[in-house]
Amino acid sequence: MNYGMIKNITGWLLIFEALFMALPAAVAVIYRESQLWYFLMVMAGCLLLGGLMVFRKPKSTTLYAKEGFVIVSLSWIVLSLVGALPFFLSGSIPNYIDALFETVSGFTTTGASILTAVEPLPKCMLMWRSFTHWVGGMGVLVFIMAFVPLSGGRNLHIMRAESPGPSVSKLVPRVKTTALILYSIYLTLTFVMFVALLISGMTAFDALNTSFSTAGTGGFGFRNDSFASFPAHQQIIVTVFMLLFSVNFSCYYLILLGKLKDAFNAELRTFLLIVAAAIGIITVNISHMYGSVSESLRHSAFAVGSIISTTGFATEDFNLWPTLSKSVLVLLMFIGACAGSTGGGIKVSRFVILFKGLRRELGAMIHPHRVKKVTVDKRPLDDDAVRSVNVYMVCFLLVFVSSIALISIEGHDLITNFTAVLAAINNIGPGLELVGPTQNFAFFSYPSKLVLIFDMLAGRLELFPMLLLFNPSTWRK
Amino acid sequence: MNYGMIKNITGWLLIFEALFMALPAAVAVIYRESQLWYFLMVMAGCLLLGGLMVFRKPKSTTLYAKEGFVIVSLSWIVLSLVGALPFFLSGSIPNYIDALFETVSGFTTTGASILTAVEPLPKCMLMWRSFTHWVGGMGVLVFIMAFVPLSGGRNLHIMRAESPGPSVSKLVPRVKTTALILYSIYLTLTFVMFVALLISGMTAFDALNTSFSTAGTGGFGFRNDSFASFPAHQQIIVTVFMLLFSVNFSCYYLILLGKLKDAFNAELRTFLLIVAAAIGIITVNISHMYGSVSESLRHSAFAVGSIISTTGFATEDFNLWPTLSKSVLVLLMFIGACAGSTGGGIKVSRFVILFKGLRRELGAMIHPHRVKKVTVDKRPLDDDAVRSVNVYMVCFLLVFVSSIALISIEGHDLITNFTAVLAAINNIGPGLELVGPTQNFAFFSYPSKLVLIFDMLAGRLELFPMLLLFNPSTWRK
Repeated sequence: MNYGMIKNITGWLLIFEALFMALPAAVAVIYRESQLWYFLMVMAGCLLLGGLMVFRKPKSTTLYAKEGFVIVSLSWIVLSLVGALPFFLSGSIPNYIDALFETVSGFTTTGASILTAVEPLPKCMLMWRSFTHWVGGMGVLVFIMAFVPLSGGRNLHIMRAESPGPSVSKLVPRVKTTALILYSIYLTLTFVMFVALLISGMTAFDALNTSFSTAGTGGFGFRNDSFASFPAHQQIIVTVFMLLFSVNFSCYYLILLGKLKDAFNAELRTFLLIVAAAIGIITVNISHMYGSVSESLRHSAFAVGSIISTTGFATEDFNLWPTLSKSVLVLLMFIGACAGSTGGGIKVSRFVILFKGLRRELGAMIHPHRVKKVTVDKRPLDDDAVRSVNVYMVCFLLVFVSSIALISIEGHDLITNFTAVLAAINNIGPGLELVGPTQNFAFFSYPSKLVLIFDMLAGRLELFPMLLLFNPSTWRK
Repeated sequence: MNYGMIKNITGWLLIFEALFMALPAAVAVIYRESQLWYFLMVMAGCLLLGGLMVFRKPKSTTLYAKEGFVIVSLSWIVLSLVGALPFFLSGSIPNYIDALFETVSGFTTTGASILTAVEPLPKCMLMWRSFTHWVGGMGVLVFIMAFVPLSGGRNLHIMRAESPGPSVSKLVPRVKTTALILYSIYLTLTFVMFVALLISGMTAFDALNTSFSTAGTGGFGFRNDSFASFPAHQQIIVTVFMLLFSVNFSCYYLILLGKLKDAFNAELRTFLLIVAAAIGIITVNISHMYGSVSESLRHSAFAVGSIISTTGFATEDFNLWPTLSKSVLVLLMFIGACAGSTGGGIKVSRFVILFKGLRRELGAMIHPHRVKKVTVDKRPLDDDAVRSVNVYMVCFLLVFVSSIALISIEGHDLITNFTAVLAAINNIGPGLELVGPTQNFAFFSYPSKLVLIFDMLAGRLELFPMLLLFNPSTWRK
């Protein structure tokens, strides 16, 4: 294990976290909030400690696969432990585990909150909450890699461990350039949304918060009723951008290059199909609850966009919708967004690979001696991809089931437990029943909150980095 | 497609079904019940039609893999369609789809009933219900194969498609002899249980019914309260035999041969561990609801045995137990019994293979260049086994999720829908909430009942035969 590199990267992480906190600190200055000092304190600490850690260059910059996993999971844990300090020290969230839950929920873009009301929070804290979504959405280490000269080609291990989806394709040969391109797209889309919301009549603070939360597909809001009290046209803007941020960012790059056919690949087509089908079914299913078709369409599209993008905003309490609609939403919770987006979930591309693999196997059962070619985007289906997706599904089930079992000890109803874990591990935010869109996670005991914190991190980092951290053989020489 | 062989085997099936009906007919004679005539009518029809169908030998006796699947799924459908006739014609179950549901539930050893009360049923009908469990438990075609000279070595395709578990191992080189050995073990164990129940003070009729239902791990009872009103020592006998019938029958053969080490293989050890752990957790969790530890242990063991064996008997309404106990039971519903037993579910051996495969993959992630040997029962883990189990899990999820979506249209609560499908596809019987152990499946609409009928058959035949029946390429030349 290359501890020198681990120390070095963690140091850079602390420095960057201090820089990130400049934004809420600025907000505190503008609104003359006394919480400014807590941000400054934490920032100073980070800069000092981080500076010391990066001061001495590591002896070797070589990173192996397992070190990539360890660095990513440790970085996210450190990021959250430090990010929770302003909430805790300022007393905005009096208990440290609660503050950690909120911060992990922020960085992992989950959006599940332990706050029973968000409106009493100072503006700088609200901004920090939303900004954690934006920072976590694209990946912190990917961001650092775009700016800091790390070791040569080995960065791919880190990118692979931090980026969502079954496979990471470099857009251009250099990892660093790829990271820069992806972040530019991210920044541009966020800015476009911010401007659109400003034009729609939002205040700058609200628009910035909403843009950060949407871009990271996070879901922290700044009103107690999430998005119910916003005018219809603003809800529509948010719906559109939630869906845009669920698309693989490489697709935007391909569109910019004019390669439209490559951009609308199997995953994107499947994603659009699922979204359209889900909106259709729910619109019909809830039409009796609303005055007009356009109204039920708006709420249905918002809920579908919010859930499949794993954002977690809500305009309506979908916990009160008919069972069919709720079943469809639970299904979407499992599916999640496209790979390479800021969204969570199991990812559409994994399901595409699963079903293609299934078709091949069923074919082989009927005609054992005929070799049938199954292709994804005109390339033959890769055996390793199928196997790795299968392993991922088993891991997912393992973590999912164990978490439900642990949370069940508390004794809440089955749907609460089931959807709370589902919402945490897929980084969605709200579930159903006690964790429905008008509820929050405050009532869970601290042991259960720790389980959910683990689930959020495991889900954001796609399971393996967190699981390998607890594997003794990772630490063996 | 070898239609000649399909016709021939279906013919033999009808003849054997007529023979099976001789038992309820005899019961009708003993208790002087007028329903005798309906059984005789159906038996005559079966013998006539079956006789005609086997009269002309098929031109070719060659069976390919796909024909094995088709024959098995068609046979089970015909078996159920005909088996439902006595219920329907006699008016015991006035609607044919209800009668079909009850019969499919019988043959697939599910034990889910659409009857709101079973006690008013004539004794011959009760016997036919329980006997369908016994017939379906071990597999009808396996039974026929033990007695009828079919084509030479190709029988393995049929045995493979009908027997539960990821792989079928022939105990002895000849398929026919293997079938005979397995049926002898089945018959002996059933007889031992019958005698034990007689000694415990049950009437012959009750003991025979209970033995059939338990041996097939079915769950149809003959009292409205299932097993709640039976004395404790009889509940204990049933608990022991439910667990005995969940064990791979090959293990008993190995024990008879004195190969104890081979008998206690990885699957059996895992099964026993799961059973012990589940009983322990639930006993503690429900202890405050019962007078003594021994009482909560008895109810806990009965419920665990009933669910993991997928029998579905109940001494207590576990729907009223704390959430932790319910979560454990739902988990057991997924796991199911051992392969090669009469129990349903995903099977313990599949989970053993899944987790061994997972361990290997995680190892490969940390040390990509080290080849680590992972073994099951001292044999190296077979790649094909891992892949086929993975495909099975995906198929399971596909059928599971689609069924829940279809049933959700009716609008019952999520837990009812979820556990109803789970209980059907894993051939358990009761679920939770509206389909809890004191409830029944009568309230579902006929479309939903058809979905559940499909699920029960698909679950019993381990998905592929039923899925391939609906695959156009199965029927293509």
